[in-house]
Amino acid sequence: MKRINGKAILYIIGKFLLIEAGALLLCLIASVYYNESIAPLLQSALITGGTGFILTYILKKSNKEIGKREGYIIVSTVWIFFSLFGSLPFILSGSIPDFTNAFFETMSGLTTTGASILTDIESLPKGILLWRSMSQWLGGMGIIVLSLAILPILGIGGMQLYTAEVPGPTKDKIHPKVKDTAQRLYMIYLLFTVAETILLIYGDMSVFDALNHAFTTMSSGGFSTFNSSIVETSPYIQYIIILFMFFAGVNFTLSYFAVHANFKKVWSNEEFRKYLTIIFLFTITITGTIILQKFQLQSLTANISSFEKIFRDSLFQVVSISTTTGYVSADYLAWSPIAIMSLYILMFFGASAGSTSGGIKIVRIILLAKHSYYEFKRLVHPNAIIPLRLDKRTVPEKIITNVLAYIIIYIIIYLFGVVVMSGLGYNLETSLGSVVATLSNVGPGIGNVGPMDNYAFLSSPAKWFLTFMMLCGRLELFTVLILFSPAFWKK
Amino acid sequence: MKRINGKAILYIIGKFLLIEAGALLLCLIASVYYNESIAPLLQSALITGGTGFILTYILKKSNKEIGKREGYIIVSTVWIFFSLFGSLPFILSGSIPDFTNAFFETMSGLTTTGASILTDIESLPKGILLWRSMSQWLGGMGIIVLSLAILPILGIGGMQLYTAEVPGPTKDKIHPKVKDTAQRLYMIYLLFTVAETILLIYGDMSVFDALNHAFTTMSSGGFSTFNSSIVETSPYIQYIIILFMFFAGVNFTLSYFAVHANFKKVWSNEEFRKYLTIIFLFTITITGTIILQKFQLQSLTANISSFEKIFRDSLFQVVSISTTTGYVSADYLAWSPIAIMSLYILMFFGASAGSTSGGIKIVRIILLAKHSYYEFKRLVHPNAIIPLRLDKRTVPEKIITNVLAYIIIYIIIYLFGVVVMSGLGYNLETSLGSVVATLSNVGPGIGNVGPMDNYAFLSSPAKWFLTFMMLCGRLELFTVLILFSPAFWKK
Repeated sequence: MKRINGKAILYIIGKFLLIEAGALLLCLIASVYYNESIAPLLQSALITGGTGFILTYILKKSNKEIGKREGYIIVSTVWIFFSLFGSLPFILSGSIPDFTNAFFETMSGLTTTGASILTDIESLPKGILLWRSMSQWLGGMGIIVLSLAILPILGIGGMQLYTAEVPGPTKDKIHPKVKDTAQRLYMIYLLFTVAETILLIYGDMSVFDALNHAFTTMSSGGFSTFNSSIVETSPYIQYIIILFMFFAGVNFTLSYFAVHANFKKVWSNEEFRKYLTIIFLFTITITGTIILQKFQLQSLTANISSFEKIFRDSLFQVVSISTTTGYVSADYLAWSPIAIMSLYILMFFGASAGSTSGGIKIVRIILLAKHSYYEFKRLVHPNAIIPLRLDKRTVPEKIITNVLAYIIIYIIIYLFGVVVMSGLGYNLETSLGSVVATLSNVGPGIGNVGPMDNYAFLSSPAKWFLTFMMLCGRLELFTVLILFSPAFWKK
Repeated sequence: MKRINGKAILYIIGKFLLIEAGALLLCLIASVYYNESIAPLLQSALITGGTGFILTYILKKSNKEIGKREGYIIVSTVWIFFSLFGSLPFILSGSIPDFTNAFFETMSGLTTTGASILTDIESLPKGILLWRSMSQWLGGMGIIVLSLAILPILGIGGMQLYTAEVPGPTKDKIHPKVKDTAQRLYMIYLLFTVAETILLIYGDMSVFDALNHAFTTMSSGGFSTFNSSIVETSPYIQYIIILFMFFAGVNFTLSYFAVHANFKKVWSNEEFRKYLTIIFLFTITITGTIILQKFQLQSLTANISSFEKIFRDSLFQVVSISTTTGYVSADYLAWSPIAIMSLYILMFFGASAGSTSGGIKIVRIILLAKHSYYEFKRLVHPNAIIPLRLDKRTVPEKIITNVLAYIIIYIIIYLFGVVVMSGLGYNLETSLGSVVATLSNVGPGIGNVGPMDNYAFLSSPAKWFLTFMMLCGRLELFTVLILFSPAFWKK
């Protein structure tokens, strides 16, 4: 194997830092508009842009050929570099003076997790709040391209189920393909963001809050500019947010078809249909248990408004958690054990592959369910050859093994995480909750990191560890874990 | 497909009931010796034996040919029939007047789970206590034959990894093979039981208690005749029990070789070596965390006896839980979160395939670990063909898929169980604990069914559900679940 081309990696990271500097400058507009100090964002932009400029300028003339291994390293380290420089505004503004906390918040943003260490969000300067929301929006953009264009080439991720044969990553071939895919999908992403912003403004939200929430909805991020998340907003606002969280959980390729009025293609997608089914079933179940619970307490006044509220709360939490957005409109930990358990399981599922959501992804759950069922069928008919189909096409055995391995490794890492958090002294529910909430990029979990809590109370080692969980989950495990494999570094 | 031969099934169940009646009569000896009422055991033996006699007599002349499907049904229903008739002594003696409780206790015995609804074990008549222990010993015998001779023929279970090609279950071919295997292994089982009884008597245990504990150790059952399980016994007794729990967790085929002094064969077995490694690593970890915890509380007087006690407690609990025996010598829920977490994970592992232990089994965990590691290797070297080896032999792809599916279905059933228990109103830790403790046939779990608790407080639906979990886990999932598949019943 060839030596790893470190210069090419740094060159590309430099390019990314220039983009980040641009985003920081955009947030400056809010600082200027609201008459806040422009220093923190300006300094951050200069430091980030300067570093990016130096890296790209110095390495301009070096060999920029990148292979698969460089690809893995770039994908993993870009998120870390982005978080390092992205935490500058929080530190320089004094909003989050502690480096661990600032890095946690930024990584939580860029991975679109939405776990926060802030206890009083509304006290932050508007410019910093905008950067916080924008970090999620940028993260979402990164993920779309990553999952739909880059990871399939590296041989990782749920989307390889849809791509038949992707050519090897030689510089000439891959570049135009990625660029083309990215541009089409970004238009959809932008379109949805603008549409949501307008609809939220129409519901009497301020332009600033509407933009922030559109950023963090479409990225399935879940950072809110309100201390109480979405709890105190109007039903209209909540329904709009439910709708766009739902969109964010759809494969963006499908959204592309939908926008071009090709609904047949959308409906023929099995993952999309099951995504709808899951949301439907979980909402019904949870609505049912809450109504039962209220009947037992005899506190249900039989008027439509309270039924509507229960349904809306259930739907909101189901969509928010299954898309791993993590907005909160009700304290679900006060619900019945079965409702909590249902949401806990949804945290693992996630939504569609090729969306901005995290988690295992529904397409993998479908393959798992089908494969398990076929294992039984094979016991009864041991010699029958039963091909596993998805979207009416046979799925190769190799992909099935890969998907099963992915789910198992997901569970192993999850258990490893729970052991680590237990080892750091947290109780079982908090360990179970914090790890799935970060690994699946949800945000709120169960235990002491529930919907009404935040991550501020955790120790520094716990915060760093959960940051690592966010990154692992966001990059579909393999991308990060492969860097720990000795075989990867062998010449 | 042919019609299911119901008469053949009932005939075989009749035969089994005759065995059970014999076992009940054996327990009568204790009743006579201790001057207790002989009525409950005698009546139970007569009812059971009578039913068995009627079934075998009436169906003597019918066609007794059994195929695979009859095999599945027999294996599942034998445990249920055994539990039904086996609960008679508890009910007739008034020791456990409630049918749900009596069935729970008997199924817990026969599946060698060891979860108990009894709050005062020592108050029971000796004859009934002996039957309680013997139910586990009988269950253990059933499992050895099931896992080493019957399930491989039905195409289920970890042992299929060791058998290359088993001929189809035509009546003539299979019978002698099963009988021969069973006899050899039963001799080992009996030998170990006798040896442990003698060694326990040597440690000043009464003959009655020694026999009972030998019954429930070798079956990895865990029912004790003491209210406080093994907590108040001497270190010598505890070490003897540790040793025999360890034996019970070894593949009985290996024990057969060991008894015939073929130690090379034992050592060349990868699962055996990993079994040792797991016990070693978990014991070291838990001992370490307890010592750390004590140091923090500054309560560790640095004498050898307290170190020895900590080590012994750790080793005992690790061996007891990894073999899914479920004896308790210390309240592990009082230990650090990481120790509790470690034991919780061990509950899933179980010990060797072909032993009396429950759980996923170490050989499957090994294959899972190797496969996961190779998935990474394949990412780096996409075109390399890396065969997965076990005991230096290549494992076929089909077996690997089967093992992965098994582990995933195990986790799905586990989660399903946790949802059901949550739905019945139990808190998360109790749901998590009670389901793994029954599904893996451990006995004590975490939450409110911990080492110092029992299952008496649960509602009837919860008890019936957990009874079902015990049976599912004991019969390696597929055997029971396949009966719920429509394809199974289709003509």
